Amino acid sequence: MDFSGLTTDIRGFARERDWEQFHTPKNLILALMSEVGELAEIFQWLSMEESTRVMQHGASASRVRDELADVLIYLVRLADVLDVDLLEASAIKLERNRERYPVEEYRGRAGKAQ
Amino acid sequence: MDFSGLTTDIRGFARERDWEQFHTPKNLILALMSEVGELAEIFQWLSMEESTRVMQHGASASRVRDELADVLIYLVRLADVLDVDLLEASAIKLERNRERYPVEEYRGRAGKAQ
Amino acid sequence: MDFSGLTTDIRGFARERDWEQFHTPKNLILALMSEVGELAEIFQWLSMEESTRVMQHGASASRVRDELADVLIYLVRLADVLDVDLLEASAIKLERNRERYPVEEYRGRAGKAQ
Amino acid sequence: MDFSGLTTDIRGFARERDWEQFHTPKNLILALMSEVGELAEIFQWLSMEESTRVMQHGASASRVRDELADVLIYLVRLADVLDVDLLEASAIKLERNRERYPVEEYRGRAGKAQ
Repeated sequence: MDFSGLTTDIRGFARERDWEQFHTPKNLILALMSEVGELAEIFQWLSMEESTRVMQHGASASRVRDELADVLIYLVRLADVLDVDLLEASAIKLERNRERYPVEEYRGRAGKAQ
Repeated sequence: MDFSGLTTDIRGFARERDWEQFHTPKNLILALMSEVGELAEIFQWLSMEESTRVMQHGASASRVRDELADVLIYLVRLADVLDVDLLEASAIKLERNRERYPVEEYRGRAGKAQ
Repeated sequence: MDFSGLTTDIRGFARERDWEQFHTPKNLILALMSEVGELAEIFQWLSMEESTRVMQHGASASRVRDELADVLIYLVRLADVLDVDLLEASAIKLERNRERYPVEEYRGRAGKAQ
Repeated sequence: MDFSGLTTDIRGFARERDWEQFHTPKNLILALMSEVGELAEIFQWLSMEESTRVMQHGASASRVRDELADVLIYLVRLADVLDVDLLEASAIKLERNRERYPVEEYRGRAGKAQ
């Protein structure tokens, strides 16, 4: 499975169910937020140490994988609806971040975009 | 640029700046949320019609591309830190959604996962 | 029940359970986000018309009330932990918004802060 | 300023600017999310220690107060639009949480609702 295959599959999934009518940008942002909220819920009360052990237990690991997947699925769908090439946009943004946060100046110092 | 190349590039970007110390799961979820919030801000007061025209104006189109990219960058980084194969997890989740929302039963009816 | 009574009650609720240790600013922001996500989930696929009817059905009305309450509870707790007088801060912010968005200039035009 | 006065003031602020047309539940949830995102952005890279010092510096303290206020303002507006008594709903929810998380059983143990 590559990224553009995933995009096409998600588009087909929506089309087959006639769900395109629900996939307005605002609705998809609400859905994206609700999935990020579920990710947050998993981690909210965990100590730093517990956070790093989340992936060592089958049940919590599989819940994390599912929520990360849900976030990606809605993000991919949103980008598709807006006709944005998500991989290209990310590569361009990362390049811009490289210029904005020169290694010498930002080593070990939190910049806004990390 | 493919998806695994993007993952590697984002990892390198963090490593070069010694920013791995900041990239705990909780911090990355906070960052993810702040980027989804910026997306929400672009669309929050737009009418449905205005929403669909966002990509027709250079300035707003480029802001949307940037925010979508920021969301993907943090999501990819979070999955990498948690050692999750994001594309594989998404393909599995999409397959599960196909079974959970049979076409005949859910055509034109909003299911929870779309 | 007034606002400062609610603040005191929430503080007591946390103290009795020795949950103050979990109530760091970051954890509470994650909790706040997870509750906003649950609100978003209720509304995400609803049409404008369905949105306005949500409060006419007992089950969805009571879910909305619960989620709004959860958001307020965590927000009040976060402000308390940060020692912020939330009502005073809001009155000050609203006053600033009044100056920033003069009625004559912004009537019917979406400003950033509404 | 008490809570119901704040609610009335926010309602008046919207009415004077003819902004009620923008204040649909979905739009207000998007706005709420964008403000929670701004809160998240302030704290995302801070260590635990830095988090607790945020309120000791004038500039960051005032930014935190502003963002908390923005979250409350949109939350109050959303509850008003949905005709929910936010204080009452919160008192009821807190009472339910007290029953759901008995002190003896949950002391020092993170429950879902804290």
